[in-house]
Amino acid sequence: MNVGIVGGTGYGAIELMRFLTNHQAVEKMYLYSQSKQGTNISDVYPHLDTIIDVAMEELTVEHVARHVDVLFFATPPAVSHKWVPALLETEVKIIDLSGDFRLADPAVYEAWYNKTTASKAYLNQAVYGLADVYRDKIKDAQLIANPGCYPTATLLGLLPVIDQAFIDRNSIIVDGKTGVSGAGRSLSQGVHYAEMNENTRAYAVGSHKHTPEIERFLSEKTEKSIFINFTPHIVPMTRGILVTMYVNLTEAISEEAIRELYQSFYRDRAFVRVKPGHSLPETKQVYGSNYCDLHITVDERTQRLIIVSVIDNLVKGASGQAIQNMNLLYGLDETEGLNLSPLYP
Amino acid sequence: MNVGIVGGTGYGAIELMRFLTNHQAVEKMYLYSQSKQGTNISDVYPHLDTIIDVAMEELTVEHVARHVDVLFFATPPAVSHKWVPALLETEVKIIDLSGDFRLADPAVYEAWYNKTTASKAYLNQAVYGLADVYRDKIKDAQLIANPGCYPTATLLGLLPVIDQAFIDRNSIIVDGKTGVSGAGRSLSQGVHYAEMNENTRAYAVGSHKHTPEIERFLSEKTEKSIFINFTPHIVPMTRGILVTMYVNLTEAISEEAIRELYQSFYRDRAFVRVKPGHSLPETKQVYGSNYCDLHITVDERTQRLIIVSVIDNLVKGASGQAIQNMNLLYGLDETEGLNLSPLYP
Amino acid sequence: MNVGIVGGTGYGAIELMRFLTNHQAVEKMYLYSQSKQGTNISDVYPHLDTIIDVAMEELTVEHVARHVDVLFFATPPAVSHKWVPALLETEVKIIDLSGDFRLADPAVYEAWYNKTTASKAYLNQAVYGLADVYRDKIKDAQLIANPGCYPTATLLGLLPVIDQAFIDRNSIIVDGKTGVSGAGRSLSQGVHYAEMNENTRAYAVGSHKHTPEIERFLSEKTEKSIFINFTPHIVPMTRGILVTMYVNLTEAISEEAIRELYQSFYRDRAFVRVKPGHSLPETKQVYGSNYCDLHITVDERTQRLIIVSVIDNLVKGASGQAIQNMNLLYGLDETEGLNLSPLYP
Amino acid sequence: MNVGIVGGTGYGAIELMRFLTNHQAVEKMYLYSQSKQGTNISDVYPHLDTIIDVAMEELTVEHVARHVDVLFFATPPAVSHKWVPALLETEVKIIDLSGDFRLADPAVYEAWYNKTTASKAYLNQAVYGLADVYRDKIKDAQLIANPGCYPTATLLGLLPVIDQAFIDRNSIIVDGKTGVSGAGRSLSQGVHYAEMNENTRAYAVGSHKHTPEIERFLSEKTEKSIFINFTPHIVPMTRGILVTMYVNLTEAISEEAIRELYQSFYRDRAFVRVKPGHSLPETKQVYGSNYCDLHITVDERTQRLIIVSVIDNLVKGASGQAIQNMNLLYGLDETEGLNLSPLYP
Repeated sequence: MNVGIVGGTGYGAIELMRFLTNHQAVEKMYLYSQSKQGTNISDVYPHLDTIIDVAMEELTVEHVARHVDVLFFATPPAVSHKWVPALLETEVKIIDLSGDFRLADPAVYEAWYNKTTASKAYLNQAVYGLADVYRDKIKDAQLIANPGCYPTATLLGLLPVIDQAFIDRNSIIVDGKTGVSGAGRSLSQGVHYAEMNENTRAYAVGSHKHTPEIERFLSEKTEKSIFINFTPHIVPMTRGILVTMYVNLTEAISEEAIRELYQSFYRDRAFVRVKPGHSLPETKQVYGSNYCDLHITVDERTQRLIIVSVIDNLVKGASGQAIQNMNLLYGLDETEGLNLSPLYP
Repeated sequence: MNVGIVGGTGYGAIELMRFLTNHQAVEKMYLYSQSKQGTNISDVYPHLDTIIDVAMEELTVEHVARHVDVLFFATPPAVSHKWVPALLETEVKIIDLSGDFRLADPAVYEAWYNKTTASKAYLNQAVYGLADVYRDKIKDAQLIANPGCYPTATLLGLLPVIDQAFIDRNSIIVDGKTGVSGAGRSLSQGVHYAEMNENTRAYAVGSHKHTPEIERFLSEKTEKSIFINFTPHIVPMTRGILVTMYVNLTEAISEEAIRELYQSFYRDRAFVRVKPGHSLPETKQVYGSNYCDLHITVDERTQRLIIVSVIDNLVKGASGQAIQNMNLLYGLDETEGLNLSPLYP
Repeated sequence: MNVGIVGGTGYGAIELMRFLTNHQAVEKMYLYSQSKQGTNISDVYPHLDTIIDVAMEELTVEHVARHVDVLFFATPPAVSHKWVPALLETEVKIIDLSGDFRLADPAVYEAWYNKTTASKAYLNQAVYGLADVYRDKIKDAQLIANPGCYPTATLLGLLPVIDQAFIDRNSIIVDGKTGVSGAGRSLSQGVHYAEMNENTRAYAVGSHKHTPEIERFLSEKTEKSIFINFTPHIVPMTRGILVTMYVNLTEAISEEAIRELYQSFYRDRAFVRVKPGHSLPETKQVYGSNYCDLHITVDERTQRLIIVSVIDNLVKGASGQAIQNMNLLYGLDETEGLNLSPLYP
Repeated sequence: MNVGIVGGTGYGAIELMRFLTNHQAVEKMYLYSQSKQGTNISDVYPHLDTIIDVAMEELTVEHVARHVDVLFFATPPAVSHKWVPALLETEVKIIDLSGDFRLADPAVYEAWYNKTTASKAYLNQAVYGLADVYRDKIKDAQLIANPGCYPTATLLGLLPVIDQAFIDRNSIIVDGKTGVSGAGRSLSQGVHYAEMNENTRAYAVGSHKHTPEIERFLSEKTEKSIFINFTPHIVPMTRGILVTMYVNLTEAISEEAIRELYQSFYRDRAFVRVKPGHSLPETKQVYGSNYCDLHITVDERTQRLIIVSVIDNLVKGASGQAIQNMNLLYGLDETEGLNLSPLYP
């Protein structure tokens, strides 16, 4: 299988390369970049010296159609949607790590992204690549909208209970904490080392663009409009997301009963680990890996369910899940190229 | 004025010393430690070489009565309550940084701390030292229960609205993020550098002992029993607390109106800064200082109020507020010894 | 092939497990621990949940002889030397990650380690496992003394030039900087997060036990007694070692000529990368991987050669090199189980 | 006294402000910035809200002459030298934190800075502000060249022995480790959080512009040309410099004798602490303060002297020393505004 990656110099792209160099089914890798054509990837990322020796080239539909089986977009918002319509005319399969095809309605995209995306007809063709939940649909897709980092951690935490009668769907509060790589490779004062180190802040309160993505899939499962509060925070570490979710319970139910419900929901999923009550998850326990660790608490005093979910934002929250989706698309073992232990310590 | 510090080798104690060495009204400092009697403080903390040259000595009521005007307890739980009854017989004023005198009911203390504290009669003699709110009561106290770090950040964030008709008092969710110094100087695997670095985790979900302290003062102001969800997290930095609070609104009210309410509540308070809407607070913006920065957002989609509060956990959340309380006790300028700019970057 | 690991709860052991779970030739893994017998490894390290399901057991020569082909000691000083004599009577191959068999003379060991090790006869049976230099000798060994972290980075940096006439062998200064995981998993105040974060210090100046190990192999190659200055420093990061080496030049020689000498020395070595002049190595560029990146500068003003070497202290500096040695022992591809890209960012 | 600061948005400037707001002799502060005229400093640095309420204005000689007693340049290279000639015609005293006036020869400046500076005549008028060594000369200066961060730590470490017969002046090797704030506030990929965190690297090997500054003052004291090797490294922390210096001994001399020599050299200096042998300095032990901690070791095996020096790069290595120089200029207590304990932890 030959793969192509658009956006060769971002963190999403280099994580894809890390997994693809160890992937048994991958023969050749093409890197596309508008800004760095002709440059070898190891000149941009010296850690890849002697590991990947590929020069970046111009993206054209023709080149992709001729050489590539599956194409990853690891691009900023509002790039992939310009290429996808023409690419869908070819045989190539597309896995889009950007947000362009994650929402159902172009108007909602525009409202949250302040940019435009593809028309509704194209959005409809995309399958949402939350691999541990929607794997059956994913298998037959040509275009996969790979989930955002926060939505992955959040939806894996909420989907098992969202349609249960014992929760209040209007009470959902999602408090996220991300490592700094989530802000990408572009420079800005907010992630300048001297000012980000020893610092924690909330950002985009009430306005983060992952909000409608989370709401869409919660709503779809329940066939009700669900609105959530989502407040992201940035904490001084490179990798990792921890999401804490708060849901009101409408009736008495034991923690154990809910934990069993989660265990059942993810029974044969290789990458979701439902933790026992005494073992609160830590972002470091999934570092560099494709795992999502989940933990639930029932606070009987307040009748609330508290769900904690951790992932590596660049792996399960981006490139790892994209590889998992590629594996599903090609009928490979879901874990191919991904069965690495977390890096600890 | 002569001061004494019990618990000379903890972080609370050395922060007290940092402020007291610059305090115009302080003449002499005594350090009491059971484990390190006879040791000079600069042998335990070499950063104090040539700055503080004091040997630790045994704590006795007699010594304190003879030499000390104000005594700080910077001790673990369940220490100060053993000394306070006898000390109250003397003239000495006591500022207790531990939790022993913060709750109204010994049974509640025991339920959350798994230890015992003083009897109700003694608890009743303590004034809660949330200096920017209760300063009038503090002025006349002999015994001050200095607030916990999370309760300080949380109560300063919630007290301005807790008794307003436009909020739902049963909907309060408090999500805290602390730096690692909050765990103190005692060694444990969880705060071993190699495992705490690049790591974020929740802890004590539903069971943190600051919960009843927050609930007590919310309840007192409203004369209703208020229960909250409080979920603390530890993030990889040494100092700083950020608390995010979620409250349901029961009627439409503008963000601007609520911000004005906060500005009015803290009008002449030197250490509380209510930030404008575009300026989300960051823990680094209060680093090493006694400030609490507050920010509010009204999320109109969900009709929720989101309050963000940041402090330095060791300063406003412990020793800085203790000095502020000492200043209030002695009729000094509240900012004496504390008017340091945050350390940035 | 079945492998055994002694010292199952240290960082060396879990890094071995990370690589061994992906190693094609490994069938079964046994973990030996005196302190944690009966405990499953994933109870000690929750990141291994669902990945490694092995209970630790008691180490006996009999058990090893019956079940294990190659046994790794990932133990503190002065443990392995007690077991090795009996184990050498069996067929098992031994790779010792501790320092017990790295020095030629028990008296030198005792002088630097303040402990005793095996007799000279046993020390003589050990082959020093600096895999990229001594691979021919390693292939036939039964007992491998796996190099220390600093010696690996330093010797790979110095061996290409140590016997050249153009350097002054008496002028060698080695300044090392290590991440905190080098201090291991045992708790101590010096690596307590709140005090190690935002902190850099030198330690063991003139007395670090890796000094005689470096000197031994420099001396062996030149057949002269070489003494060096080695000053280690600890910097606030979890992984990585950077060593800066200073050597006086005795005659004019170009940087390019020396660089070619290094390139030639490591020509077919998969894990040593000699960097071009413009590309100074960074510890992050080898993070989690088995690479050693080397860089040389000739300072013409002072006639000195400056060599910079970076490794991941837990991989090339410990467990990765141990796996590489196992591969050499069994005639496998040297990179088996180790061909992972560095984790970046 | 009224002070002016040129370069109001850099880290040097905000550290000056931190100290000046607590300085008894300072009445008014003017901030000059070309890029941010009209902007209030607290809009650039929100941590200064309610603390400093000053708008930046245009720098002109006339404004300075009319309003300012002492003017600090906290500017990039090759700025101050354009203003100084005209300013020297006025009464204003100038403390230049940039490198423009630190070297004796414009040609040397140009060779290392790749920029031009003032003519020799003006360079000659500057007094080098290494406050703990040259305080007598500083008292009478109109123009002070405030030392660089590395030169401060290094010269304080070497000057006590540089003219001693027992050292070899041609053997000096200086290995520096700096926190990231040394790179300033300008954005670059190398200090982007996600890539600087968990990373250590050497930079500017053999070419750092602080090299000739160190060599100048070593040479001046000995009246011999001294050349050193200086290799800077960047480590993942915000503040702090640790410099390790290696010097060959030409005769046997005890560690104790050398330590006494240091203690004598710095006998009445408030900000230099010569540490006992067992107490290796740590950057955190001077965090946020104006101290320089020094430690010496004699390695008898190699006959080398190893000196370790730590400072806070932004305080003793820049703004703190600048305030100390201002105090000397005005006959104030050297410690005025600076007698803060280090921030620990």
